[in-house]
Amino acid sequence: MDLLLLSNSTSDDGYLVHAHAAITELADGRTDALFVPYAGVTRDWDAYTDQVREALAPIGITVRGLHAEADPLAAVNAATLIVVGGGNTFRLLQVLRQQALLAPMAARVRAGAARYIGWSAGSNLATPSIRTTNDMPVVDPGGLDALGLIPFQLNPHYYNLVVPGFRGETRDQRLAEFTTLSPDTPVLGLPEGNWVRVSGNHHTLHGPHAARWFLGDRTWDVAAGVLGVP
Amino acid sequence: MDLLLLSNSTSDDGYLVHAHAAITELADGRTDALFVPYAGVTRDWDAYTDQVREALAPIGITVRGLHAEADPLAAVNAATLIVVGGGNTFRLLQVLRQQALLAPMAARVRAGAARYIGWSAGSNLATPSIRTTNDMPVVDPGGLDALGLIPFQLNPHYYNLVVPGFRGETRDQRLAEFTTLSPDTPVLGLPEGNWVRVSGNHHTLHGPHAARWFLGDRTWDVAAGVLGVP
Repeated sequence: MDLLLLSNSTSDDGYLVHAHAAITELADGRTDALFVPYAGVTRDWDAYTDQVREALAPIGITVRGLHAEADPLAAVNAATLIVVGGGNTFRLLQVLRQQALLAPMAARVRAGAARYIGWSAGSNLATPSIRTTNDMPVVDPGGLDALGLIPFQLNPHYYNLVVPGFRGETRDQRLAEFTTLSPDTPVLGLPEGNWVRVSGNHHTLHGPHAARWFLGDRTWDVAAGVLGVP
Repeated sequence: MDLLLLSNSTSDDGYLVHAHAAITELADGRTDALFVPYAGVTRDWDAYTDQVREALAPIGITVRGLHAEADPLAAVNAATLIVVGGGNTFRLLQVLRQQALLAPMAARVRAGAARYIGWSAGSNLATPSIRTTNDMPVVDPGGLDALGLIPFQLNPHYYNLVVPGFRGETRDQRLAEFTTLSPDTPVLGLPEGNWVRVSGNHHTLHGPHAARWFLGDRTWDVAAGVLGVP
């Protein structure tokens, strides 16, 4: 089982450019990607797929949109590289559940038949549930459980900035709500520009920033390198 | 039907102090408040109730916690002033649904037998659904529909600050996802320090800032005063 779970897609260098090398390594010669655009809400799925197609062309990967497949289940079951884009995590989970694609997708990745790349909502989808997404619950996904390909939660776009004048919760306060109610489930706060490479049961943190673990009432930072999942 | 829906509880003057006059006006002589602390996750419901008790004592309102009532349904059905605190909206909705208190609470407020005060999550609860909360979905509330006491959605703690280095969605982008998928439902972005006073079908915006309406692909700002619901 091989996954690449990115915090974000945009960077100062251009869309997905910061991830080119990591995507090339993960793809390991696979050149035909099945792209899942369902997290896109305010943009057309065709346009979203075009954007990803253009972003991956320079590294020799061609992109088909799952939404344009006549038989989505067959497309998932034939895919060797599944790419799940960001946007709204609730919408992503809702559409995949409506199409009954969650279990087939998880099974194919778990079996090693397809490799998985996600960013933002697409990274949330790979975890046990979407309970640590930052997104607004604009639709009811029919349950919060997700693919469960890794044994911990991710919080993409992680930062704990205190915004002047804002009286709501900080990110750490929100995550503390999760760990209070689910004290046995670890959460990794994944800063912008970072990613996790999953290979079987091994997890490695990459990127320029330290990430932060949350477990029960404890938090601690970890630098890039092998991740010991607590 | 009389409601006071506040964006936030904390202010530079102290906890709920900015709302003292508005709460006194809404209570209109009622001095016995039933407080719903269920949105509190990282703090004890007793402690949360104590905090609200101390905050409302100076304006002559006594506070009982719903969580401490032997018969919560009877307590709701006897209440004349229901106060719903902020915290996590998903947790608030989950506990009220588990206790089968949503319909009785809505009916009592709708009948005018109890007046309603909410802030943050407590304000989200009064709207058709919690789909425009800012909170993290740390638990599954068993559906996103809420009390439906007003005909529009609220987004508390509204601001559209662009945080340097953050690659996720701005607040306006998140709300545009909602209005894209629910184009006929208006959303009011309620800034810190503002509130909405509901009296029957009349809605009035109060506070120091302009609020922002979101409907379909349109947004526009409104100043304090009578709210024409679009």
